[in-house]
Amino acid sequence: MNLAGVFAPIPTPFDDDDRADLTRLRAALPRWVDSALSGIVVLGSTGEAVLLDEDESDRVIAEVREAVPPGRPVIAGTGRESTRATVRASRRAAELGADAVLVRTPGFFKSQMSAEVFVRHYTAVADATPVPVLLYNFAAVTGVNLPLDAVARLAGHPNIAGIKESGGDGARIADLVAAGSSGLVVLAGSASTFHESLCAGAVGGVLALAVLVPNACVRLFELTSDGKHDAARALQHQLVPLARLIGPTYGVAGLKAALRISGCDVGHPRPPLAPAPEAAVVALTEALARFEDIAA
Amino acid sequence: MNLAGVFAPIPTPFDDDDRADLTRLRAALPRWVDSALSGIVVLGSTGEAVLLDEDESDRVIAEVREAVPPGRPVIAGTGRESTRATVRASRRAAELGADAVLVRTPGFFKSQMSAEVFVRHYTAVADATPVPVLLYNFAAVTGVNLPLDAVARLAGHPNIAGIKESGGDGARIADLVAAGSSGLVVLAGSASTFHESLCAGAVGGVLALAVLVPNACVRLFELTSDGKHDAARALQHQLVPLARLIGPTYGVAGLKAALRISGCDVGHPRPPLAPAPEAAVVALTEALARFEDIAA
Amino acid sequence: MNLAGVFAPIPTPFDDDDRADLTRLRAALPRWVDSALSGIVVLGSTGEAVLLDEDESDRVIAEVREAVPPGRPVIAGTGRESTRATVRASRRAAELGADAVLVRTPGFFKSQMSAEVFVRHYTAVADATPVPVLLYNFAAVTGVNLPLDAVARLAGHPNIAGIKESGGDGARIADLVAAGSSGLVVLAGSASTFHESLCAGAVGGVLALAVLVPNACVRLFELTSDGKHDAARALQHQLVPLARLIGPTYGVAGLKAALRISGCDVGHPRPPLAPAPEAAVVALTEALARFEDIAA
Amino acid sequence: MNLAGVFAPIPTPFDDDDRADLTRLRAALPRWVDSALSGIVVLGSTGEAVLLDEDESDRVIAEVREAVPPGRPVIAGTGRESTRATVRASRRAAELGADAVLVRTPGFFKSQMSAEVFVRHYTAVADATPVPVLLYNFAAVTGVNLPLDAVARLAGHPNIAGIKESGGDGARIADLVAAGSSGLVVLAGSASTFHESLCAGAVGGVLALAVLVPNACVRLFELTSDGKHDAARALQHQLVPLARLIGPTYGVAGLKAALRISGCDVGHPRPPLAPAPEAAVVALTEALARFEDIAA
Repeated sequence: MNLAGVFAPIPTPFDDDDRADLTRLRAALPRWVDSALSGIVVLGSTGEAVLLDEDESDRVIAEVREAVPPGRPVIAGTGRESTRATVRASRRAAELGADAVLVRTPGFFKSQMSAEVFVRHYTAVADATPVPVLLYNFAAVTGVNLPLDAVARLAGHPNIAGIKESGGDGARIADLVAAGSSGLVVLAGSASTFHESLCAGAVGGVLALAVLVPNACVRLFELTSDGKHDAARALQHQLVPLARLIGPTYGVAGLKAALRISGCDVGHPRPPLAPAPEAAVVALTEALARFEDIAA
Repeated sequence: MNLAGVFAPIPTPFDDDDRADLTRLRAALPRWVDSALSGIVVLGSTGEAVLLDEDESDRVIAEVREAVPPGRPVIAGTGRESTRATVRASRRAAELGADAVLVRTPGFFKSQMSAEVFVRHYTAVADATPVPVLLYNFAAVTGVNLPLDAVARLAGHPNIAGIKESGGDGARIADLVAAGSSGLVVLAGSASTFHESLCAGAVGGVLALAVLVPNACVRLFELTSDGKHDAARALQHQLVPLARLIGPTYGVAGLKAALRISGCDVGHPRPPLAPAPEAAVVALTEALARFEDIAA
Repeated sequence: MNLAGVFAPIPTPFDDDDRADLTRLRAALPRWVDSALSGIVVLGSTGEAVLLDEDESDRVIAEVREAVPPGRPVIAGTGRESTRATVRASRRAAELGADAVLVRTPGFFKSQMSAEVFVRHYTAVADATPVPVLLYNFAAVTGVNLPLDAVARLAGHPNIAGIKESGGDGARIADLVAAGSSGLVVLAGSASTFHESLCAGAVGGVLALAVLVPNACVRLFELTSDGKHDAARALQHQLVPLARLIGPTYGVAGLKAALRISGCDVGHPRPPLAPAPEAAVVALTEALARFEDIAA
Repeated sequence: MNLAGVFAPIPTPFDDDDRADLTRLRAALPRWVDSALSGIVVLGSTGEAVLLDEDESDRVIAEVREAVPPGRPVIAGTGRESTRATVRASRRAAELGADAVLVRTPGFFKSQMSAEVFVRHYTAVADATPVPVLLYNFAAVTGVNLPLDAVARLAGHPNIAGIKESGGDGARIADLVAAGSSGLVVLAGSASTFHESLCAGAVGGVLALAVLVPNACVRLFELTSDGKHDAARALQHQLVPLARLIGPTYGVAGLKAALRISGCDVGHPRPPLAPAPEAAVVALTEALARFEDIAA
């Protein structure tokens, strides 16, 4: 399975009665399937995975797998707080046709999450799952940081293929590249530092921004791969305002609003998340217009 | 419903096959039912609630309710990340006989958790739940902090009775007491600052330490209520080492090990949590022995 | 030397040419000398000590000592980053008549500030200074936290009399009280948690708020000492808005503006600190008016 | 003045009586003067500037300027907490022959350090100083972060030439490059992320590691400039262990110990900083030996 390039962590549509809306999901998929993306991540953080119950999760994965051509990788997010629930979700995702699973670190009991605990958790999941496992570190959200020595040990597991690192710290990316050198690749999660992350040795990225402008993200990847760093830096700089609006500023609600502005209606986020405020719509409309000018 | 005094957030036993062990749970309950505690919290953080699935959660609540005499308050933890799942869990808990529900703040999408979002979430839960709702703020674990103005607004809801604040900051407790003055009471969550929290206006506490030494915690409450501050301070100082061992240092594994040392076997925590290491058993044995000397 | 009660860390006036203004300083002193305060701290953080050069510092201390009657304690802030400069400043302050020195932790090289380093630093200062030394921990500003075991070891030094703890965490205050039980007392630095700090065993406080409303702070101290906790809590709650305006919100500029509103002109802070903005003057005028209503 | 390439922030030697040792300083200088470095920074953080008094500072700058050939840039650290003291120190440094001054953000009064305050401070310093001024952001030590809009505004000042950013966050570096595009360049301060920082648009670096292995740092700069990213990444990865030992792990004491191991005795740090412990000497000896093997 080739993990190089750009993956889009697609959103989960909800209808007006707060139910997962598989019809809208299917309607939106061509946007990503017909792009230059390397593949799709379903039920990542951006997919509001933590707001879905187990049954909904399975139906979303099944729907996506059915609609995405077999050659195109589909990666399913299956991290849960308990090892037991993570194993079960990962097995079900594999049965439903996911090509790999992306397993966020558990983190509720922060003070107890030692390297040893992580190694045991991921080893149990990787042992039990019939498709490749990707580690997933997102310290800003989970409050825990997968230690480098845990990554180095897990890199030796035959069924652990890579790690998604959501933080933008270049030194951490470089350290992970080194820690994983014996068997896992690094995917970046922050569009605002995608260029530096690739310079630091990441092979690609899972970028919320790629849900919105997949081809621009792929072009940034290619410019960097081709050693055209000035052009890459300039493109990234153009992308940063959009990346922030759909990231820290307005989050999933911002991404969903931006998609709607771009002609793809996936509804609002599930409560407690609120719909994007009017100010977000104004800022996103402006940022999208400015970006299209530049990109034209 | 009287929320003054000390509540114990009881642990959930698991058997050697990683299943919730209701037999052991029932066997352990008299320890708390026969004490001077004001009541019991089931499926709090210490109850490893995030590691249980919905079905297990219901069975644990039902078991506890059945074993605890009707006059004795049972509060069930029912916080989930989505409003929808929280409403459902809260309703089920009420049906199963819980006297109140304790609802931890959702917090996965940290940057989006505004006062407005919290007010909407808790209002929806309180509207839909037939028993009183307690807010639950645990910033060290969730990474979000329920804003004071959200608490002040929620204090006006007829079905919101109180807030558990797990942080030990006395100024925050005092601010919450003021914010809630029109209709909710404050329960402290940190045994190491229980005396100062009561001085700051808390009416009681939900203390993991009360699982282990319920009567000492109640005595600390009474000494403070009676204005015997020097004695209260001295008792609290004796309790701090134990509180730390079963709190930040070894967590739930530490608490379960300490219970076993005290003759109450509730097994180990559920993975990914690891059993307490040998060093924890040594330190806990020592701390318990030292405390019993003092208490004698 | 009796450290119980409330001390005011007085501001340093500057004239319009950015020079220390000793005339205004002398004119302002009766405000504090004629109050119920236990004593005065000169060149604390609130005194903008870090913005003065060595020569100015000496002149300010000399002026205050001359104007304050001999029986009334004057404590001088003399912390510097190097041990050598701290020893020199402390000796000069003693020669100029200070009754004690208050020595903020050095903290520039954060990662290197171990308990051992602090013990060596404070021991050298206490050995070399002919008047009692007070430790001074202000983690929010220095970024370092004096470890408890360093405090416990320093408590045995015959020339170390106490510690000012600026943080509002009641558990930390209680821990310091225990750590210092063999020979040093604890002074609280946060007015917003003064009541809880006294409950936790502090013998008094060095409160910026006492510069503005000395008698109210002393009354809070006395209410707590007399076990009138409800009244103490109510008074503290009234003081919190003022404490925040002259603390985190507008800092020294806020305190100086509030003094001017109260009829005591000590000028503006030294640059880079900016004068309080108009919004601060409005908020402070309102808060002072509201507080006087209550106090009347 | 050309700021591209690598600058070394040289240490300040002290003798056994805790006095600045100008003889040792002069003896050590050829190590850096005879290397491929672009220039020298005297009295940076690594130069223990905060531990020196004003008189010592002047003598150190004078000594360095005298010993470094006129064509070779000498940059002097002159940041103080007050604007007035910073202006004075900067003027004196210019008189003593410094080619530019490096001015760390003041940061004691953290909550008051707005963009406006920083703009006023640096404008006053740049207006008054006859040589170019470099901004210096070191949030991990000062606890404040120079806002991007302040940097953008200061970039228009004719006498502000650049900014040293000590943090390793690639997104921040890229943002600074964009903010400064109208007139200031960015120098990186973290050797562990030097390659990514250059990819993000920094023109060079001020690296403590360059005190120890100047030519390796210059080679890393050149490999990156030449687009040899794999080789650059590999070299940086070899440098990280050394960079950490003389950075977060043992700090200035570690750097001074490593210099002594390398045959250049600049004594120990000034108290309260402690000499490097024996464990540091062992680890540094090993890391230096391993690095030399690789470099050979």
